[in-house]
Amino acid sequence: MTTHNLIGSYPQAPAREMSDVVDAALIAVDARMNTAVDSEVPVLRDASRHIIQAGGKRVRPRLLMLSHLACSGDSIDDAVTISAALELVHTASVVHDDINDHGVLRRGRPSVNALWGRTFALLTGDFLFTKVYELMAPYKDLNILLAEATVALVEGETLQASAVKEKNFTREIYYRIIGLKTAALFRAAGAMGGQLADASPKIVNALGNFGYNVGLAFQIIDDLLDLTGDNEQLGKTSGIDLEQGRGFAAAHGDTEAQDMIDALKSKALQSDTLHEGRSRAEQLVQLAIQELSILPDSEAKAGLIELAHNVINRSN
Amino acid sequence: MTTHNLIGSYPQAPAREMSDVVDAALIAVDARMNTAVDSEVPVLRDASRHIIQAGGKRVRPRLLMLSHLACSGDSIDDAVTISAALELVHTASVVHDDINDHGVLRRGRPSVNALWGRTFALLTGDFLFTKVYELMAPYKDLNILLAEATVALVEGETLQASAVKEKNFTREIYYRIIGLKTAALFRAAGAMGGQLADASPKIVNALGNFGYNVGLAFQIIDDLLDLTGDNEQLGKTSGIDLEQGRGFAAAHGDTEAQDMIDALKSKALQSDTLHEGRSRAEQLVQLAIQELSILPDSEAKAGLIELAHNVINRSN
Repeated sequence: MTTHNLIGSYPQAPAREMSDVVDAALIAVDARMNTAVDSEVPVLRDASRHIIQAGGKRVRPRLLMLSHLACSGDSIDDAVTISAALELVHTASVVHDDINDHGVLRRGRPSVNALWGRTFALLTGDFLFTKVYELMAPYKDLNILLAEATVALVEGETLQASAVKEKNFTREIYYRIIGLKTAALFRAAGAMGGQLADASPKIVNALGNFGYNVGLAFQIIDDLLDLTGDNEQLGKTSGIDLEQGRGFAAAHGDTEAQDMIDALKSKALQSDTLHEGRSRAEQLVQLAIQELSILPDSEAKAGLIELAHNVINRSN
Repeated sequence: MTTHNLIGSYPQAPAREMSDVVDAALIAVDARMNTAVDSEVPVLRDASRHIIQAGGKRVRPRLLMLSHLACSGDSIDDAVTISAALELVHTASVVHDDINDHGVLRRGRPSVNALWGRTFALLTGDFLFTKVYELMAPYKDLNILLAEATVALVEGETLQASAVKEKNFTREIYYRIIGLKTAALFRAAGAMGGQLADASPKIVNALGNFGYNVGLAFQIIDDLLDLTGDNEQLGKTSGIDLEQGRGFAAAHGDTEAQDMIDALKSKALQSDTLHEGRSRAEQLVQLAIQELSILPDSEAKAGLIELAHNVINRSN
C-alpha cells in the first residue's frame, strides 16, 4: 500500500514551501516514532517498528501539522513530537484491535498478532501506549486533549464490541461508536495543532470540529471500503470490521445478517447503503470545511481542505 | 483478603496524626480511582471498579504518601491523584497479565478476564492506562517519572514472557525482570512523593532507591508466596507465576522443570530456595532502609521503615 494519496512522495515543482514543510515534518514524525520505541527488549522494538514502518496514511499527523501551520504556528519540532504521540495512539489501538479481531493482515503486512502471537501483541500495544504517555509528558494542556481523545477511542472500541455481543448495532450506536473511536482523535489532532500555535479558543474549537467531522467521514469511507475492497487493495484483512458487526452496512442493514459477511456484502452492494454512506461522508466534509471560514486563507488552509477531500476520494 | 497488614482499618488510640493522614489519604486514593474510571460505557466502568474494589495492598500509594510526608510535603490532594494514577498503572498491568496468564482469580475475586472475557479485559486494561494518562496530564515532571516506570513495567513483563518462551530464565534475567516490572514503579512512588514535596535531588534519589529495593524485595516475597501459598490465602490463582516460568524458584532452580509446577514446588520446598530468597529480600530491605539516613527522623520515616519490614513479613 502506498501513501501517495495523502502524503505525496516528493515536493512538486514549483516547490511549495508549505508543502515542503509538511512533507519534511511527516518524515520527522516517522523518525520520532521509530526512535521513541527503541528498547532493550528486542521484541518490543521490533514489533513496534514493524507496524510503524508498515506505513499507514499518517492522516492524523498531517491534520495536526496543517492545523498548526494554518494558525501561523512555527513550533514544528513540538508538532512533530505531538504528531508522533498521536499516531502512536492510533497504532497502539490497531495492534490491540488485531488481537480482538484476529486480524492477520495490516497495512499490507502480517499483523503483530500474526507474527509475534497474542501475548507479545498485547504487550506491544501497551508499550506503544506508554510511549505516547512518555512523549507527551512535557505538554500539560495538550496532554489533556490527547488523553481525553485516547479515553474516547478505547470507549468507542468497547461500545463496538458490546454492540456486536448484544447484536444491537443501530444507526445511532454506529455514529456514537465512530465519534468515539475515530473522530475524537481527529478532533484532538486539529485542536492540538491550533493550541500549539496559541490560537484563540474559537479557532482551536473550529479546528477541532473540522477534525471531528473529517474523522467521521474517514471512518464511514473506511467501513464502505471494507465492504467493497479486497485484501490486497486495502492492505488489511477485509471483512473483519464487518465480522465484528461494525461498519456502515451493519448499522444500516439487517443486524441479523452480521455474521454472514458475504450475504451482507452482497446485500449492501445491491442496496443504496454505499450511496447513502458516501453521501453522508460528503456532507460531513462540507460541514468540516465550513468550520475553516474562521481562518484566513493560506496554503495550509488549502491543504486542510485538500485533506478533507482526499479522505473521501481514496481507494484504500 | 484483607488489607489490614499494610493499611490498617481504623486509627489506633492514641491517634497518631501522621497515620491518620495516611489512612485518610489512602481512602481518598480509592475514591479518586473509582471516580476516574467512571464512563458512559458500562462494561469499562464496571470491570474497572470490580478490580479496583477488590482491594489489593495499596503498598505503592502508601509508599508515595509516606515519602511525601517524610519530606514535610503537604500537597496531599496532588499526592492522592498521583497515587491513584500510580495504582492504576499497577491495576492495568494486572488486568492484562491475567489475560496472558489465563488467571481466573485475582485479589480473591474472579479476574476481569474470567468475568468479562478477553476482549473486554484487554479494553479495560487499555482504559485504565488511558486514565493514568488523563490523571497525570497536569503534572509535567512527575509525569516523566511515572511514564518511564510504566515503560519499564511493560518491558519487564515482556522480558518475562520472552524468557519463558525461550526457556532461558537465569538468575540474572530474573533480577532484570523484577527490576523492570515491579521495582521501577516502586522507585517512581518514592521519587514522586519526594519531588512533589520539592525535596532536593539527593533526597528524591534516596527515596527512589528506597522504593526500588523495597520493590525488589516485594517481588521476591511475592514469588516465594506463590510457591508456597494456596489460592485462598493468596487471593489469586497460585502457581500461575510459576507456570509462566517466572518466580524466584524458576530462576534459581532447574529451568527444565518450569512447566511442572508441583515438581518445582516440591523441589523448591526441599531446597534452600526459600531460605535464599527470604535472605535476599531481607538484605534488600536493609539496603532500602539505609537510604533513608539522609532524612530527618519523623513519624513518616518510621512509617517507611515499617512498610519495608511489612513487605517481607506478610502472608499474602
